[in-house]
Amino acid sequence: MTENRELSTVLPVAPTRGRLRPLGLDEVRITGGFWARRRETNATATLAHCRDWMERTGWTGNFRAVAEGRIGRDRRGREFADSEIYKLLEAMAWQSGTGTNTHTGAALDADIAALTEAVASAQEPDGYLNTAFGHPGQQPRYSDLEWGHELYCYGFLIQAGIAQARTRGEGELTKVALRAADHICATFGRGGIESVCGHAEIETALVELARLTGEERYLDQAALFIDRRGHGTLADGEFGRVYHQDDQPVREATVLRGHAVRALYLASGAVDVAVETGDEELLAAVERQWAATAARRTYLTGGMGSHHRDEAFGDDFVLPPDRAYSETCAGVASVQLSWRLLLATGDPRYADLAERTLFNVVATSPSEDGRSFFYANTLHRRHRGAVPATDAVSPRAESSMRAPWFAVSCCPTNVARTLAQLPAHLATADDQGIQLHQYADAEIATTLTGGHDVALSVRTDYPSGGKVTVRIVRSSPARPLALSLRVPAWTEDATAYLVDPDGTCRTVPPGTAEVTRVFRPGDEIRLELPVAPRWIAPDARIDAVRGTVAVQRGPLVYCAESVDLPGGREADAVRVDPSAEPEDGPEGTVVAPGELVEQDGEQDGPGDPGWPYRPLDRATVSAAERTGIVLIPYNSWANRGPSTMRVWLPTTET
Amino acid sequence: MTENRELSTVLPVAPTRGRLRPLGLDEVRITGGFWARRRETNATATLAHCRDWMERTGWTGNFRAVAEGRIGRDRRGREFADSEIYKLLEAMAWQSGTGTNTHTGAALDADIAALTEAVASAQEPDGYLNTAFGHPGQQPRYSDLEWGHELYCYGFLIQAGIAQARTRGEGELTKVALRAADHICATFGRGGIESVCGHAEIETALVELARLTGEERYLDQAALFIDRRGHGTLADGEFGRVYHQDDQPVREATVLRGHAVRALYLASGAVDVAVETGDEELLAAVERQWAATAARRTYLTGGMGSHHRDEAFGDDFVLPPDRAYSETCAGVASVQLSWRLLLATGDPRYADLAERTLFNVVATSPSEDGRSFFYANTLHRRHRGAVPATDAVSPRAESSMRAPWFAVSCCPTNVARTLAQLPAHLATADDQGIQLHQYADAEIATTLTGGHDVALSVRTDYPSGGKVTVRIVRSSPARPLALSLRVPAWTEDATAYLVDPDGTCRTVPPGTAEVTRVFRPGDEIRLELPVAPRWIAPDARIDAVRGTVAVQRGPLVYCAESVDLPGGREADAVRVDPSAEPEDGPEGTVVAPGELVEQDGEQDGPGDPGWPYRPLDRATVSAAERTGIVLIPYNSWANRGPSTMRVWLPTTET
Repeated sequence: MTENRELSTVLPVAPTRGRLRPLGLDEVRITGGFWARRRETNATATLAHCRDWMERTGWTGNFRAVAEGRIGRDRRGREFADSEIYKLLEAMAWQSGTGTNTHTGAALDADIAALTEAVASAQEPDGYLNTAFGHPGQQPRYSDLEWGHELYCYGFLIQAGIAQARTRGEGELTKVALRAADHICATFGRGGIESVCGHAEIETALVELARLTGEERYLDQAALFIDRRGHGTLADGEFGRVYHQDDQPVREATVLRGHAVRALYLASGAVDVAVETGDEELLAAVERQWAATAARRTYLTGGMGSHHRDEAFGDDFVLPPDRAYSETCAGVASVQLSWRLLLATGDPRYADLAERTLFNVVATSPSEDGRSFFYANTLHRRHRGAVPATDAVSPRAESSMRAPWFAVSCCPTNVARTLAQLPAHLATADDQGIQLHQYADAEIATTLTGGHDVALSVRTDYPSGGKVTVRIVRSSPARPLALSLRVPAWTEDATAYLVDPDGTCRTVPPGTAEVTRVFRPGDEIRLELPVAPRWIAPDARIDAVRGTVAVQRGPLVYCAESVDLPGGREADAVRVDPSAEPEDGPEGTVVAPGELVEQDGEQDGPGDPGWPYRPLDRATVSAAERTGIVLIPYNSWANRGPSTMRVWLPTTET
Repeated sequence: MTENRELSTVLPVAPTRGRLRPLGLDEVRITGGFWARRRETNATATLAHCRDWMERTGWTGNFRAVAEGRIGRDRRGREFADSEIYKLLEAMAWQSGTGTNTHTGAALDADIAALTEAVASAQEPDGYLNTAFGHPGQQPRYSDLEWGHELYCYGFLIQAGIAQARTRGEGELTKVALRAADHICATFGRGGIESVCGHAEIETALVELARLTGEERYLDQAALFIDRRGHGTLADGEFGRVYHQDDQPVREATVLRGHAVRALYLASGAVDVAVETGDEELLAAVERQWAATAARRTYLTGGMGSHHRDEAFGDDFVLPPDRAYSETCAGVASVQLSWRLLLATGDPRYADLAERTLFNVVATSPSEDGRSFFYANTLHRRHRGAVPATDAVSPRAESSMRAPWFAVSCCPTNVARTLAQLPAHLATADDQGIQLHQYADAEIATTLTGGHDVALSVRTDYPSGGKVTVRIVRSSPARPLALSLRVPAWTEDATAYLVDPDGTCRTVPPGTAEVTRVFRPGDEIRLELPVAPRWIAPDARIDAVRGTVAVQRGPLVYCAESVDLPGGREADAVRVDPSAEPEDGPEGTVVAPGELVEQDGEQDGPGDPGWPYRPLDRATVSAAERTGIVLIPYNSWANRGPSTMRVWLPTTET
């Protein structure tokens, strides 16, 4: 790892060292395409949607109720409702501080000011701030560390305060966060409450605050929380200590386990602590956990968590598509973790998983209008569900259609803050040059070590198309620049090409393609990624999807949705024939060779009518109609009314 | 349907009409083989085991606590604990009244007397009897019909009273039951509480009491309960009205749904009511529900119920083996339902499912020593579980190894009463002759219409062997006798033969094989069933077992258990090759052609190491060791310590 010099001040994650230096939101701008549209919807619809729902559900009012001394009887929402206001504030801050639309920016600043005033009014003189505990008629402070979420809420408060400081400069929200952080250190430091929060999150926030302020004590406190966990300080509850990752010390664990969001937030915090303290053993432990989790506990979409009951990781290779929980927040948390590991190590595998998760989980959650969301992201839906209420909160894992708000509504604000800071994920720098990790129309400008001034312009229609053109806008004369581009792992069965400024073309294997030379303005590098649709087969150890294949096109996972099938067929009628190839269809669809089988009616065979298990040589073949099956990107399903859907498609051979 | 004349007085189920006349426990005796051993263990171990655990857990003491006026503070166990004493009493009564060991019989009679005295002491003057409600410090009678189980408990009390009356003659237990039944009619009759019990069971008991006593009002009350259900009289709770089958009237439903045991008890009661009232529509409704349930919602073992959360049926074809609940009591209840439908219609399909369920669910639950039980019967176990405590109650669906007793311990007593009355399931009669439905060494004697005296002797080593020899011991001279034998549906891919007394041999297809002739004593009919092991393939609509096959041998489902695999391999290492045939191995095992794959280690391929989804043409093949895989009967797994197990075996082709 090298020290990061000349870090941008507009950075969501700003490690002081690492293999790669992150670029700030002032250095990377997304100018068009898939993510620009998502970010525009986020800025113009989702942020206000979240603000309005939190006003309506009374979660914002909780802060005013504390200030007015009536919280004991008036509090609304679950114990962690405060955190949603903080996450929204963070999203608004990144959006406001980096948005190009100054009108939106001013309106957001007004929202931030109003919400901050409410939040600040509820802070106690000693820095304590939580609307669910410690006031007349409530349980005492820190009396339920397992489920109370007090430190979890502080974590998001601190991240919001940091976002304000890094976009508009230190303001009232930052001050509230600093008072809270000092209160935490005073309360949970050595000799204080020797425990941790049931839901990790404070760790990564405290490290980032140490990075912002240079105050070592915040880092020390985060390291304390990391080291304390896994020793059984929390009570052993319904889901076991593994739920809170309190079953095993972080540096001893070999795989992520328990509640998926908790596990991923904790791992992110552990990477932050490891990087700042130079703790190679701790970093290696999280890298090992990430690798085992990616190899054995991750859905094709990048989604994590296969248990509904405890929102947790399942055992190795237990990845049932119909019971996939794949919580949106676990997707957000996974992207956070991969980003931290990418910065620390430079390994493109982390950017590969981040890309997969961004396109197939984070982009799947919000509807096209940015006003309804999936909480869980199943890979197989057998029944057309009811249309969720537009005027009431929904159960969180209903998963038939997206809902506007949930009783536990962590996902909308998490999507919002992720999209608001997304440009920071596109590129990094090191002493030699620039690394491109995610592809979108973008303008990138930074100064490398020694004053080497570089500006790039990226043009692409990715992920629809596979051509990525990087144009050199500026690069100091006579200075060689190393320009590296990630060649996604998903290109392994096809060939990617890199065309250099001279027009020389070479094939590039998955990993990183690099061109080092003295560039002149106007020079272009072109990466050509093979985005033709292709069959994907699951590992033979995944019981739940044996005998099926899926289709991916570029980074996008595809699915069959009943809306696209003829004759009112449900998605379960689809069988595909992997001996032929899927092909591009109109408007971003893929057409896969296959057939539609009869779905109703019992089988009727000799000897055992109406019994679904037959001697192998008498297994019945359903009547089928040969046809091309229209598939759509998974992230756009359920936008056309109640439907059934499946990602893993049974083959005609089985 | 014809009227049943000359019914035995020793009958668990004694319909007044039907296609077939049941034979009593005085007419059929099991004399050796698989079920004789199970019944011996039941009589000598399980009955006393249940009695001792109910003393130890205080469930028997609850009755004494009512009599002594201290129940409000002293009651132990769940709200339905009373029913376990009744189910044990019923099991003891059938065993005592028909057992050949007079020493055991006398000891059982003493147990019955002692338990009856305790039960009787708790009955109120108006006939009310329940230790969980209606006494000082308890909720009022019938204040929680959804979950209180008061009528459910009466159902088992009445069945115990009937068993006593039919084995030893009407006694104290019968009188207690009659007082309770009169109380029910007075309380829940027309103009009384116009509702039903959350757990069906009372219906079938009241019909049987009407059969015993000839009192129409018990039948009327049962019919009222059947007709009331499905109209939403019960509150809509956590699992919906479908859990209690209160979502849809019995005669309108098309498939069994909701809590599996509740659904099957209700359907049994509906058949009883339909038969006694001549309600063809109601009978047809249940037949339709049975057919759809067998075709779409039943495991290969005959097990029913795929939800752990609500112990309920899943949707059509949603039959995950690893999450199979397949509750032992649902197996018992399914056998009850199939028996009633067989008597009403004569259709051998009902005996087919009963056989499958008896051998693979009912016989799987108890351990070899009859002192521990499976509550749920999973078809796939991935992890070696802990050894259950021998001195404490266990969680009910742990399923790693059999446990001696459960907090909800409905299964041990249900197995006990099923085994105690099992001989009644072997054969029936009609005016023309005798029908054999289940095969075991047995002595059968009855008198057909017109005084035709018949006695048969059955010898077989079924299910190990497929040869069943029926010897005519007596048959009135010059009277033709129709002897019919069920040819199991599982013979469909092989050939069964019937050899008549002259040595003439013919092939017989699945269904019923019949020989009608004037028999002489000593004449023999021989059925030869092809019990060679064979591959079974699942319906292509069952997502969870696509790409796998199972092995059945005769009626027995087989499984791979880790104990039998070399090198400490787990069951998930097994792959089988269905292009070759499984063969008989030593000691009842089957050896299947296949291989054992490496289980640990991440896959390591180009481009995307450690990612479990690969382009179809690059899907990795695990290193494998070709070998014969030893399989054992599913009903004998988990008898050799903690292990892993699977019924559905992935094929080497996938």
